[in-house]
Order: sequence, then C-alpha cells, then structure tokens
Amino acid sequence: MKITCSKQELMRAINIVTKAVPANTTMPVLKCVFIDASASEIKFTANDMELGIETKVDGVILEQGVVALEAKLFSDMIRKMEESDVTIASDENFNTTITCEKAKFNIMGQSGEDFPYLPFVEKDYQVILSQFTLKEVIRQTIFSIASTETNKIMTGELFDIKENSLRVISLDGHRISIRNILLKDSLEARRAIVPGKTLNEISKILSGGTEDDVEIYLTENLILFEFDGNVVVSRLIEGKYFNVDQMITNDYETKVTINRQDFTSCLDRATLMVKEGDKRPIILNIADNVMEMKISSQIGKMNDVLDIELEGKPIKIGFNPRFMLDALRVIDDETIDIYFMNSKAPCFIRDEEQSYNYMVLPVNFVD
Amino acid sequence: MKITCSKQELMRAINIVTKAVPANTTMPVLKCVFIDASASEIKFTANDMELGIETKVDGVILEQGVVALEAKLFSDMIRKMEESDVTIASDENFNTTITCEKAKFNIMGQSGEDFPYLPFVEKDYQVILSQFTLKEVIRQTIFSIASTETNKIMTGELFDIKENSLRVISLDGHRISIRNILLKDSLEARRAIVPGKTLNEISKILSGGTEDDVEIYLTENLILFEFDGNVVVSRLIEGKYFNVDQMITNDYETKVTINRQDFTSCLDRATLMVKEGDKRPIILNIADNVMEMKISSQIGKMNDVLDIELEGKPIKIGFNPRFMLDALRVIDDETIDIYFMNSKAPCFIRDEEQSYNYMVLPVNFVD
Repeated sequence: MKITCSKQELMRAINIVTKAVPANTTMPVLKCVFIDASASEIKFTANDMELGIETKVDGVILEQGVVALEAKLFSDMIRKMEESDVTIASDENFNTTITCEKAKFNIMGQSGEDFPYLPFVEKDYQVILSQFTLKEVIRQTIFSIASTETNKIMTGELFDIKENSLRVISLDGHRISIRNILLKDSLEARRAIVPGKTLNEISKILSGGTEDDVEIYLTENLILFEFDGNVVVSRLIEGKYFNVDQMITNDYETKVTINRQDFTSCLDRATLMVKEGDKRPIILNIADNVMEMKISSQIGKMNDVLDIELEGKPIKIGFNPRFMLDALRVIDDETIDIYFMNSKAPCFIRDEEQSYNYMVLPVNFVD
Repeated sequence: MKITCSKQELMRAINIVTKAVPANTTMPVLKCVFIDASASEIKFTANDMELGIETKVDGVILEQGVVALEAKLFSDMIRKMEESDVTIASDENFNTTITCEKAKFNIMGQSGEDFPYLPFVEKDYQVILSQFTLKEVIRQTIFSIASTETNKIMTGELFDIKENSLRVISLDGHRISIRNILLKDSLEARRAIVPGKTLNEISKILSGGTEDDVEIYLTENLILFEFDGNVVVSRLIEGKYFNVDQMITNDYETKVTINRQDFTSCLDRATLMVKEGDKRPIILNIADNVMEMKISSQIGKMNDVLDIELEGKPIKIGFNPRFMLDALRVIDDETIDIYFMNSKAPCFIRDEEQSYNYMVLPVNFVD
C-alpha cells in the first residue's frame, strides 16, 4: 500500500477515528487505526467493538492495499511532521515507512486481517438532525446518565421517537433530564438506548453547524450516524428503558420564577460546603418575592437570598446543590420556572413548551 | 478582625501567596493563608517552612486583628463570589464570616498563633534584576535541575555573582545549563544555591516586565525577593556547588552551525522512538554541509537530514534527544553553534558572547 495525503488532512482524520480507540483492550489490533486503500478511496477506521468510526481521507492512492498502525504512535508521528505532504507506504510484511520532506519513520504495521470491520447497518429507519441540534441535545442531557455500570440502562440515553418528535432522556436515580426536539418529518414510533460513551465521543466530532446535517439510522441493535464523510456505528444498550412518563407530572402547588444566572452562582457557592459524596442539601425557603438559601456542614455555612416571583404556596425544600446546578448550566433561558408539589416530591424545571424538563428529587433535611 | 477588599484584589493576593502552601504537611496551620490586619496594612502570608510568600493587599481595615483561613477553601469561596467588595470578619473565637452582596459564608478560622512568620533577612547584599530577566533565566535553566532528592544540591540552581556578572547554573549529571547576565553594578563575589521549587514558584508570580525590578537580597542561609509589594523568602540549599569551570572548555575540533527550529523539529520527532527512561541515542553523522540523523529502537526507526555549516572535522556522535531538545527550546537565536571535541566528549551549544552555554554529555552507541 502507498498513499500520499497532506499532514493536515491526516491529522483531521486521525483525530476523528481515534475517538473509538479503546484505552484498554485485550485485542492489540483494536489499538490501531486501520488504513484501507484497497479500493478507490482512502478510509481510516477505529473500532472498540461497541463504537466504530470510519472517515474518508482526501489523498492519492499510489498503490492499493491496507495496513493497521498503532494509533497513538501514528498520531504522534504525523503531528510532529512538517506541514507538508506525507507518504505512507507498507510492504508485503507491513513494514511501514512514513515520509514527509526529508524526515522518515520506519515502523512495523499489522496486516489488519483480524481488524473488525464496522457492522453493516440496514438503512430503513432514518432520522435527520442538524449537527448543532445533536451536539446541543447531548450536552444538555449527558450529565445525568449514571457513571457506574450497576444499572447498564442508566449509562445510556433514551432516543424516543414518536410522530414528528424526538425525546432524548437520561436519568440516574436522582434526577431526569428530558429534551424535546421537533423533527421535520413524522416517523414510525421507535425507542433506542444509546450508550453515553458513544454520545460523548460523537459530540466531540460533530462540527455543531446549524446548516450541517447528521443522518441517523436505527436498527434493533445498532445506531449509525453519517455526517461530513464520517460513519459512526454504535451498539445500542439492550433492555427496556424506564417509564419516565409515570415519573413526571405537570401539577404543582408552587411555581417560582427566578434569574437563572443568579441562582446558578448561589448553588455554585453552596457546593463548596459539600464534600464529594456528601449528600448535604441546600435548603430553599421560598416565600413571597424572596428565596432564602442555606447550607451547613462540617466545613461551614452559607446563606444567600434571591429575588423571585412566587405563584402558589410558600415551601421549604432541600436539594443536592450539584444536581440543581447541572440542570441550570445547560439551560439557555435568562429566567427559569421551577415547579414544586411539596417538600417530599420532586421539582421540575421546564419551559412552557416543554422543550426541556429537568426533574430533581428532593433531599430530606432536619431544620 | 474585619476587612473589606475588592474580590479582584483578594484573588490576586490569594493566587500569589498560595504558591507557598504545601500540598502535604503535618502542620495543619501551614495549609492556611495568614491574614494580618493587626497594624495599618493588610498582608497575606503563606509559608511551607522552606519558601514563604507575603503580599500587601489593598483594602480597608475596619477592625484590627489576624486570622488564618484554610487556603483552598478560602480561595474557592472568594473565586465564586460576585465581582464586588468582600468583607472578611472574625470574632474572638476566629469564627469567620465572608460576605459579598447577599451571599454569606461562615467558616472556622484559626488563631494563627502558631503560624510561622517569614524569617528576618538582613538587607546587606543586594542584586537588582528586571522581572523579565529573572523570569527568563529561570525558564532557560530550570529544566536541567535533578528531579530526585538523591543529590540535594542538584535540585537547586547556583546563583554565582562575581563583579558585574551573575551566572545561573543548573546541572543533573547528564548536562549543564549556564546563563550569564550582566549586572548594572559590580558586587562582592557571592555564591548561593537556590532551591528549584522556589525558582519555579517565583517565576509564576513574576510579571515578567522589562521595566519592573526585582530586588534580591542574600544572606548565608536565605534569599529574599522583593517586587510589586510581594516578599518571597526562601532557604538556600546548604553545601558547596560543583566546580563547573572544570567541566567546560572552549576548545573544539568540530563546529556545526544549524537552524535551531529545524533541528528542534527533528529531535522532537526522534523522541517518539524512545520510551520514557530508555537511553537510546539519536546518532548525528556530521559531514560537510549535511548532518544525517538516525535513531532506532523496538518502536521503529527515524532518519532525517539537515543542511549545516561545518568548521573542522566530520564527527559521528550520539545524544539523548530529549536533553538536546530541552536546551534548544530555551534558546531564542535563529541559528545556533554546536561545538564538539570527539564522540566521547560533551558538546557545547553556546553563543559567541557566552550569554548561554549548554553542555550535553554524549551517549555511547553501537553502529
């Protein structure tokens, strides 16, 4: 195999596919970028068996063939080359030379014959989103997936499609994040649980342009994303997602309208009083026009007061300040509405159109 | 004690003094910033017993007194406050309230009665440098101090003053870095070994301005730096520094003139072939007009060629590419001269005025 590409194009492609190179694996070939120049196009692929990424690379094929190169070393070598054309050549034993101007590297490549190709995905069921929308919706929900594998389903997000709406949902047992997206077309109902890791990695690759589309295809076990010459395939998480509709309600006894940025700053300060893993709540004392906040721990105490608009009953309720904070940080509105039922029931932060709905469970407190 | 300062001024002062807060200590009070408002000025101090930093803080003393506050928490609290005036008040039990707008923190302070004051430094022997010069000379030499405490003296840098010259020297057994600085005044000869940690921390505080001076005072055991209302005091390392003059020579058999940036790029690529801790050399094959470079290891091979100007004999010699690289990265000249004696003797990278002189020991190689 022998190909020539610009250094810049190689770096672009490497940065994309290496998102799917596993940090640890018992299969050494998975640590590689697989270079496929066996047909008329150059493609780079990486695959950790759950997530696979393939990207087309702009360049010239001087001799057809394939080779698998250790991803970290390959990436470092290309990065340290001059800004010029780079030639990658492999002989029949996969001895590989990488040349740029007068600099030349020789390394051992692998045949890649045991490199797992991306699984084939039937393109029957298609959803189209802008890159901006997909990137945003991931950012706005990913923080409330569960970080431990105790409940596998909680480590993913539900993509729930019904008619012309896509609901993206994550939950971790303490809170639920829901974002609603309007689709251009009406689709057959479908639910898929997408691994959080897949969403994290794909959001790093997405340009985030409002004019650039992502085509998403779903099968029973797989999800495929196509955009900008990239193909990202991921396994779905098997199982049945939680019945979230049972957990949310639009009823309320108390509605608080508050400046988001001010509330965020207060909660951020409150977190200083809570050690990692400590469940000490911030206590919100909501009365007409003002909300008093206080938190106390072995570290110390914090008090603060914010102006609010109150509709309904006064209430006193405790929350993990970090959970509140996570939700507030991904909302763009200047002013938010929080809905409460009573001090034992969850609160909901949602806008009128319910384009977002964040539920946080309260924490008991001794006054 | 009760003081009021702007949030911005508090952050400035905290960021300076916390450079002297130890990461680990058996004396809890050393984890604190000591706030001294007992006289007419506000001063913050931190001290890890080897390095102590004091800074004047602009603000209003409403009630004289002192208090010691845990540095990390204090810093986090101030950082998360609004951009406004902050009031810090302690009662007779050192219960401390920190207030900014409506936000209020209560934490337990400490009396600070066991907080170690900075040692008194006799101001007999003064050296004046610009902040730019001191910051630069540290950057240009600090990389070749020894990182392990096996030989304590190697963890510091020699400040060697003779007449109107200051030589700053570091060495680690494989290489020597020397920078020569011309002083305004002629001074009595004096040598001091300044801990590397002190130099690292002070270089983070220095503004680096060419118009801003640093006053340095030396006693037998201490060094004092005064600049911008800051006082930095450090113990010196005891002992006799190496006789570096014995190790360097101006004789040479081969002189190579080379583009610094090109050589740096080659060496940087070569380091990819060397695992951390591996002593595999890059072999320079220097002939008329060209220098061939090659390195090989289990990882692979790298070859490169650079145009050079040669004066004297051709030579073939091996070096640890990282050691070469460290020196090249802190030289500003576009073109550098490297002097060689033979393949067993160190090479020297120096300019004509010897404002810098970097020695690197060669590594044996089997061709």
